[in-house]
Amino acid sequence: MFTGLSAFPLTPVTPAGLDERGFIRLLERITSAGADSIGVLGSTGSYAYLTRPQRRQIATIAKSHAENIPLMVCVGSVSTDEVLCLADDAQAAGANALLLPPVSYQKLRDDEVFGLFETLTQHASVPVCVYDNPGTTFEFSDELHGRIAALAGIRSVKIPGVPPSPEDALARVQRLKSKLPAGVTVGISGDASAATGLNAGCEVWYSVCGGLFPQTAKEITDAAARGERERVAQLSERLQPLWDLFRKHGGSIRVMAAAAGALGLTDVDCLPRPLRPLSADDIAEVAAVITRLELR
Amino acid sequence: MFTGLSAFPLTPVTPAGLDERGFIRLLERITSAGADSIGVLGSTGSYAYLTRPQRRQIATIAKSHAENIPLMVCVGSVSTDEVLCLADDAQAAGANALLLPPVSYQKLRDDEVFGLFETLTQHASVPVCVYDNPGTTFEFSDELHGRIAALAGIRSVKIPGVPPSPEDALARVQRLKSKLPAGVTVGISGDASAATGLNAGCEVWYSVCGGLFPQTAKEITDAAARGERERVAQLSERLQPLWDLFRKHGGSIRVMAAAAGALGLTDVDCLPRPLRPLSADDIAEVAAVITRLELR
Repeated sequence: MFTGLSAFPLTPVTPAGLDERGFIRLLERITSAGADSIGVLGSTGSYAYLTRPQRRQIATIAKSHAENIPLMVCVGSVSTDEVLCLADDAQAAGANALLLPPVSYQKLRDDEVFGLFETLTQHASVPVCVYDNPGTTFEFSDELHGRIAALAGIRSVKIPGVPPSPEDALARVQRLKSKLPAGVTVGISGDASAATGLNAGCEVWYSVCGGLFPQTAKEITDAAARGERERVAQLSERLQPLWDLFRKHGGSIRVMAAAAGALGLTDVDCLPRPLRPLSADDIAEVAAVITRLELR
Repeated sequence: MFTGLSAFPLTPVTPAGLDERGFIRLLERITSAGADSIGVLGSTGSYAYLTRPQRRQIATIAKSHAENIPLMVCVGSVSTDEVLCLADDAQAAGANALLLPPVSYQKLRDDEVFGLFETLTQHASVPVCVYDNPGTTFEFSDELHGRIAALAGIRSVKIPGVPPSPEDALARVQRLKSKLPAGVTVGISGDASAATGLNAGCEVWYSVCGGLFPQTAKEITDAAARGERERVAQLSERLQPLWDLFRKHGGSIRVMAAAAGALGLTDVDCLPRPLRPLSADDIAEVAAVITRLELR
């Protein structure tokens, strides 16, 4: 399950709580498109804003609507105790894998991050994917990636964007891979550099775009699987207006929430507070880009 | 309560959960020293690592051992819903004030942070202190501080360190104060620059040092209250080896945990996982500094 397109949907919320129906609509788009895996409660899935019961509920709904697509559930928390509780919940809900970002409040030391992954892999009975998200969590060295990836149970590393030039991206992915055991895949996130990452040897795209526009994203991973490097690059270049929106709004979450609302899949305001939706003008711009690019 | 010494104790934990007896020992030192207020569950109080029931329990214990010293409880959480629940719990436990850091996962926009403080102040019945901690949460502009401080219920702003030169520190504190309504105090944190901040006009020291060494910290705030600027600076300079330890270990929490353990007030390992205690050599160095400086 750690190859191809891993689609990361939003978790839409309303003032009354989780928007289950909206979430199911997102899942149905992903299963229809035939994604290779589903990743719920990622960063754009608002894991950090939800309670333990809410996260259990999302995992349960996802499993019951994932059809035969493998399900990965993010179990990130500042507290190791809480990570283990969330892992128990996710496994009880039927998760096929766990995604762990080393969320930090106090800046963590390498031995503390290693200890966190060691504790989770010893506790869990399903595979674990390392979530490397330096902006919100912790800065990994490749050496630390190597030590963690050698733990039994680690099966993939989700990295942030790669350098823009194909040569630099290739060097970056090869340097990381040289530290990882065989069988541990490298997955690209940071949608704007997904094509560059796939062409540089990443085996999977952990994709926010694929959480809402899974057909559009799957064309890219399918082309990558066929080794059609130029087509991968072209398909991503065509989506530049979407990547520009992500950059303009300081990340993907508010843009994807606006897009889900504009498509009528969720309420227009589907973000957990304190996050707030984009302005009406910005939402109109997002809707126009969806139409123009025929995102689906 | 938003003047003088506000002492911020650790929240010691063991593998079995909260170390209530250790926590009470820390509170007893603070009440004996006559701190002006107690701030529990601050950053060094590990609020980010504890569950809602644990935070309620800490607030309750603190209130029952605070004697007549006002109690402030930190209600920080990534989620606004959770902040309100924590505020209810803290008020039910008898908190005299709430401390709110705008903890972020997705980078927050100014209107989102303002909305968070607006929501809390409308919900709460006790005063609120703004917790400005750019490293772990959000970067405030002075303009935003001014807008938030104008909300009914805001009574103090806890700022991080000030510039090292007395002139720059004075300018920095005066610039902030020019944006704040009368009656909203400015409190310094970042213990190493506390003396500079107090001499620059900060009315309160939100003090990690005061959470474990309240007599030592109170000498400084007492001197500041008497306007003895040189003595304030001298007393802080004498503590330079302690500030050096904070810098060496990337912050105060692991050092204070080592110190509490070395004094026999808590277990040697009293940090919540994934945080881990300092090495035996580093703990011995901390113990030597405590003895040499006669910290108390």
